[in-house]
Amino acid sequence: MDPSRIAVIGLGAMGFGMAASLIRAGFTVTGHDVQPAPLAQLQAIGGLSAATPAAAARDAAAVIAVVVNAAQTEAILFAADGCAAAMAEGAVFISCATMPPETVRGLAARLEATGRHYLDAPISGGAARAATGALTIMASGSQAAFAQARPALEAMAATLHELGDAPGIGAGFKMVNQLLAGVHIAAACEAIAFGAALGLDLRKLYDVITGSAGNSWMFENRVPHILDADYAPRSAVNIFTKDLGIVLDMARATPLAVPMAGAALQLFLMTASAGMGQDDDASVARLFATIAALDLPVAH
Amino acid sequence: MDPSRIAVIGLGAMGFGMAASLIRAGFTVTGHDVQPAPLAQLQAIGGLSAATPAAAARDAAAVIAVVVNAAQTEAILFAADGCAAAMAEGAVFISCATMPPETVRGLAARLEATGRHYLDAPISGGAARAATGALTIMASGSQAAFAQARPALEAMAATLHELGDAPGIGAGFKMVNQLLAGVHIAAACEAIAFGAALGLDLRKLYDVITGSAGNSWMFENRVPHILDADYAPRSAVNIFTKDLGIVLDMARATPLAVPMAGAALQLFLMTASAGMGQDDDASVARLFATIAALDLPVAH
Repeated sequence: MDPSRIAVIGLGAMGFGMAASLIRAGFTVTGHDVQPAPLAQLQAIGGLSAATPAAAARDAAAVIAVVVNAAQTEAILFAADGCAAAMAEGAVFISCATMPPETVRGLAARLEATGRHYLDAPISGGAARAATGALTIMASGSQAAFAQARPALEAMAATLHELGDAPGIGAGFKMVNQLLAGVHIAAACEAIAFGAALGLDLRKLYDVITGSAGNSWMFENRVPHILDADYAPRSAVNIFTKDLGIVLDMARATPLAVPMAGAALQLFLMTASAGMGQDDDASVARLFATIAALDLPVAH
Repeated sequence: MDPSRIAVIGLGAMGFGMAASLIRAGFTVTGHDVQPAPLAQLQAIGGLSAATPAAAARDAAAVIAVVVNAAQTEAILFAADGCAAAMAEGAVFISCATMPPETVRGLAARLEATGRHYLDAPISGGAARAATGALTIMASGSQAAFAQARPALEAMAATLHELGDAPGIGAGFKMVNQLLAGVHIAAACEAIAFGAALGLDLRKLYDVITGSAGNSWMFENRVPHILDADYAPRSAVNIFTKDLGIVLDMARATPLAVPMAGAALQLFLMTASAGMGQDDDASVARLFATIAALDLPVAH
């Protein structure tokens, strides 16, 4: 095992930025992705390309999985050509996908039984902050997992929350964040629709609300997409049908009623079923506008 | 009419603070309230006391109404002993209650037909900022109304939004703000309940969320009440059953579906019907805790 070698599995907007941050910090980064294009781009900035998760993980001190969900994370670890068996003993698997805590605990137990470490490390901050090494990471795991992961984490994060000594705790924090993020996006879109129905000047409305008690991080960040009529996906509607779906599943299993998250999920599902699942999550505003024939800004 | 004289009708937490700010700025302030205690307090800080709105308004350049709703505002203006007939010609009525725009337009038209001005001026910021002259005011009205009101507004506000040339526009902005504020309080309480159900450390959760994309002004402001188990009302549950009730009525009249506001209103109504209507609006968290037998912090 070589402490300067890191594997990054999943080179989407987040994973590619994280790989770039690691390269800038001096690590030798081997990437794997199911698409060829980001592998070529990784080589262009000084990284190495591997054909399988197993090949990427060999000799790496840490393997970072930056994929969409639990199924993909499980495949990276345990499918044929998965990285678990290829990882050096004592190496750490850093899992960044948003997953239910229960699932995290299951994956971690399977991996740790083989002598490798598992760090539960969901991320927040978006592609721009991934690219600059300024993510927020909500991590939990054993002291050994943290010790092994810390050099890589410090190259990727501006804020590293160390939330507990077992996998699954970080995932719990992330799910609470996603509940709020999803509700706030849906509320921002509903509020803009309400303002449009009242005939208010929507740019003035943005200025007033961002300086008032009605503000949220998501209102401030997403409403400009609506004002610019720019629905190119920075984060897609389908991310929130997935993440709020996990929240609702977890809450039902508890059982706990979460009516705010429930209402938000229905709005994201309506937006996806209206054909906008791949578009920016601010598209919930277009759903309101379509239903109620409201005038929102249009692209020029 | 004496430009140094201002009347303040309604000396609750907001109105008293605004009256104090006006006194500090050098105005002669005459107050009226249905309760005797705040009138005595006003006299103790250099204000004058009047037995009726009409008596308070006589000779004042501006009459500021800081009451709870449209019915109280209408009574202050047009009931027997109301201020409308007593106001000097050219004086301005500054209306701060949260009301539907349609109601504001009706009250303004009735008053302006008599030669007095009406400024639609809902406020935001809470009692502490009222007391320091640092409110946000979302105002609309004629140029004449603004000109007549401006000296008083500048003594009370850190931020004066001038939103349009007719009464009702300010009220629209305020209703959008209240939609978001109510949804965000309900979401904050739901998120804390979800975190408690997951067994998370709630103080750590507060630290993580306030630095993440899930943050809102209301989450940051209200969750400390839950962490301290302090439900003394800074702003009561009943304010939001009222304000979200107005939002839902307005949206139904449009018609516009506002499912996020609808879910939040039901949570505030449940909290009020469980006996917490007069308590702090963070009591929605206690509703969740009661229903699901969750451990929230308890008072010492």
